[in-house]
Amino acid sequence: MPTPDLAVIGGGQLARMMQPPAIALGLRIRLLAEGPDVSAAQVIADHIVGDYTDLDTLREVVAQAPVVTFDHEHVPPEHLRALEAEGHACRPGPHALLYAQDKAEMRTRLSALGAPVPRHASIASREDLEAFGFPAVLKTTRGGYDGKGVWVVRSHVDADEAFSADRPLLAEELVDFRRELSALVARSPSGEVRPYPVVESRQRDGVCAEVIAPAPDLDADLAAAARALAEQIATELDVTGILAVELFETVDGRLLVNELAMRPHNTGHWSIDGAVTSQFENHLRGVLDLPLGGTDAREPWSVMVNVLGGSVDDLEAQRGVVLGAEPDVKVHLYGKAVKAGRKVGHVTACGDDLDDVLARARHAAALLTDD
Amino acid sequence: MPTPDLAVIGGGQLARMMQPPAIALGLRIRLLAEGPDVSAAQVIADHIVGDYTDLDTLREVVAQAPVVTFDHEHVPPEHLRALEAEGHACRPGPHALLYAQDKAEMRTRLSALGAPVPRHASIASREDLEAFGFPAVLKTTRGGYDGKGVWVVRSHVDADEAFSADRPLLAEELVDFRRELSALVARSPSGEVRPYPVVESRQRDGVCAEVIAPAPDLDADLAAAARALAEQIATELDVTGILAVELFETVDGRLLVNELAMRPHNTGHWSIDGAVTSQFENHLRGVLDLPLGGTDAREPWSVMVNVLGGSVDDLEAQRGVVLGAEPDVKVHLYGKAVKAGRKVGHVTACGDDLDDVLARARHAAALLTDD
Repeated sequence: MPTPDLAVIGGGQLARMMQPPAIALGLRIRLLAEGPDVSAAQVIADHIVGDYTDLDTLREVVAQAPVVTFDHEHVPPEHLRALEAEGHACRPGPHALLYAQDKAEMRTRLSALGAPVPRHASIASREDLEAFGFPAVLKTTRGGYDGKGVWVVRSHVDADEAFSADRPLLAEELVDFRRELSALVARSPSGEVRPYPVVESRQRDGVCAEVIAPAPDLDADLAAAARALAEQIATELDVTGILAVELFETVDGRLLVNELAMRPHNTGHWSIDGAVTSQFENHLRGVLDLPLGGTDAREPWSVMVNVLGGSVDDLEAQRGVVLGAEPDVKVHLYGKAVKAGRKVGHVTACGDDLDDVLARARHAAALLTDD
Repeated sequence: MPTPDLAVIGGGQLARMMQPPAIALGLRIRLLAEGPDVSAAQVIADHIVGDYTDLDTLREVVAQAPVVTFDHEHVPPEHLRALEAEGHACRPGPHALLYAQDKAEMRTRLSALGAPVPRHASIASREDLEAFGFPAVLKTTRGGYDGKGVWVVRSHVDADEAFSADRPLLAEELVDFRRELSALVARSPSGEVRPYPVVESRQRDGVCAEVIAPAPDLDADLAAAARALAEQIATELDVTGILAVELFETVDGRLLVNELAMRPHNTGHWSIDGAVTSQFENHLRGVLDLPLGGTDAREPWSVMVNVLGGSVDDLEAQRGVVLGAEPDVKVHLYGKAVKAGRKVGHVTACGDDLDDVLARARHAAALLTDD
C-alpha cells in the first residue's frame, strides 16, 4: 500500500463518510477497524483489523502516517500521549480530547473559561446527590453516548442504577430547555476556525432523530453567540478538526453547553449535501492543517433525518423504493446490519420551503425504517 | 470480498468518481483495473488487475456481478455479447455501445432517426475524399478521443497522416459552429429518462478545457430541443446509464450532433457539486435499474475547469495552496501522475454570478497547472 496521508482510528460510519472527500482530494486514509466488515472497512482498502485499546496495534496503524485522527473518542489517552511522544500528530490531541472523554473535566474547564454550563457537581455518594438536590440529571463522567449513561433522577430510587456500577458520576441541573441546538466549527492547528450555521437537533429517546439547518426562528444574536462560543471553545481547548458543541436553548432564551464532541458529528451530517464543504471534508482539511473550506449553507433549508433500525430488515432491497419515492433526497447507507434503534443511515433533503423539505426527508427515512 | 452489486470495466477517473456515490448508496463495485495503482484501483478495494480485451479476465471480474458497466467504450463488442449470452447484463449493452464505438455506425443510425448530423461520408480512398470535397474533417471511425484520430483537411496533403494508418475513415463537413454544447441524460433499462441542463463545453487543442452549466444565453427552444434530442437518442438506441450527446450550435442557430459517449462524461463533472444528483450517481442508479435522481442544477451557475498536466509536478504539494486561495471551489484530484496535457483533476465553482464563478474556477485550476 502507498504511504497514507493520515490514520483514522475506528471503523464506524464517521470514518466511512470521510472517504468520499478523501477520494476527491486525493488523500489516502489508513484505517484501524474493529472488524473486517465494519462500516468504514468496507470502503477503505488500507485497513488493519484490531483493537484500539492496544498500543502496539495503534503503533502498527500509524507507522507511516504523519497524522492520526478518530472516528470516536474512546482511544485511551495514555496511548495517545505515547504516540505523540513517538512523533505522531494526534488531532485532536489527548490534551483536547480529555474534554470530550470526561464530562466532569469538561464542565470544570468550560466553567473556568466562562462558558455557560448547567449547574453541576461531582457525585461520589448518596450524600453528594442529596446535597445537589432533586430533580437532577446523573451522568457517568466517561463512556456515555446516545442517552446511555444518563439518568433523570427525581428521587434516590431513580439513582439506583446510576450508583450500581460504581463509576464516577456527575450531577447536573435538569435544564428547562426550549430545544437543543448544535454549533459545529472546523479548526486547524494553524488556528484557522470556520463555524457552520447553528442547527436544531431533535432527539428521540436520547438519540438524535433529525436536524434542521439552520435552526428555525433562532434569534440572530443567539446564533452569533453560539458560533462565537464554539469558536472560543475550539480555540481555548486547541481542538483540531471538527468540534461539535451541543447546546440547550433555555426557555428564558439563554444558551447552555450540553456536550462536546471532537470529530464529525451526527448534527453535521446535513453538511454533506447542504453546505459548501462537508464536515467530513473540513475534518480532513483541519487535521491535516490544510486551509478550511467554506461552511455556508447551499440552500435556505437542509433537513437530515437519521435512519434508525426499524422493521425494514433489508435496507438494500428497500433502496429502490425510497429513491423512487423521493428522487431529490440524498440517501446515505452505512453498510451496517439492521438492529432496533441502531443508526444505519441517514437522508438529507434541501430546498427553499422548510415544510416541504421536512416532509420529504421524513418520508424517505420512514420508507427505510417501517414496512 | 462480499458479492458486488456491479462490475466496472476500466480503472480511470470515471470509475474512481463512481465510488463516492456507491459508498453513499451502499453499493459494492468490483473493478477491472489496467494496473495496480490506476486512478480507480486506489479507491476501490475489490479490484482485479487485468486486460479488458481478454474474455477470460472479463469473466473473472463479472463472475458474481449481475450488472456490468464501463469506464470507457473500448471493450470488444464480441466479448460483451459473450458475457450477455452467459447471463450478465451489460449496461449499456453492445447493441447500444456500437454507436459510441464506431462513428460511421453512429452517423448512419442517427441519420436514420432523423437526428441532425453534419454531412458525412465513409472514406475508403483518396477518390472518396475528393468526391466529398474540401475542407473536411477526417476521423478514424474507431478509437479516437480528445482530438486524437481527427484531422481538419483542406487539401490532400493534410490527409496524409489520416490515410497512413490504413484505418476506416469518415469525412464530415467542417461545421461553422458558434460553440459546442453537451446534452447529458440518464436512462434506466425500465425506460426512465432524466435530462441534465444543457451545458457549454469549451475545448482547447481538441480537449475539453471548461464547462459552463447551464450554457449561457442559450435560446430556450434550442435548449429544449437539445434535451429532447438526447432523450430520443438514449431511448431509440436503448442506452442505459449516462449518455452524453456532444453538439455543435451552428452560427445559424441549429444543433448538429458531434459525438456520443455512453458513460459519465467530462462535460458532466460539474454535476458532482452543481446538480441534485451527480452523473456518477445517476449512472449507477441507471445501470442498476434503480429510480433516477433529480437532475436540476443546485445553483444558477456551475463552472468546471479541467486540470490538465502543466508545470505543477506535485499536485498534492500544491493542494493546500489552491484550497487556501479558493476555499469555496471544490477540488477533485484523480491520483494520476502528471504528464503534459493529461487530465489529472478538475475543479468546480458554483454561484449566482457567472463572471465570479468562472474567475474562481479558472484561478483554482491555474494554481494546479502552472507554477
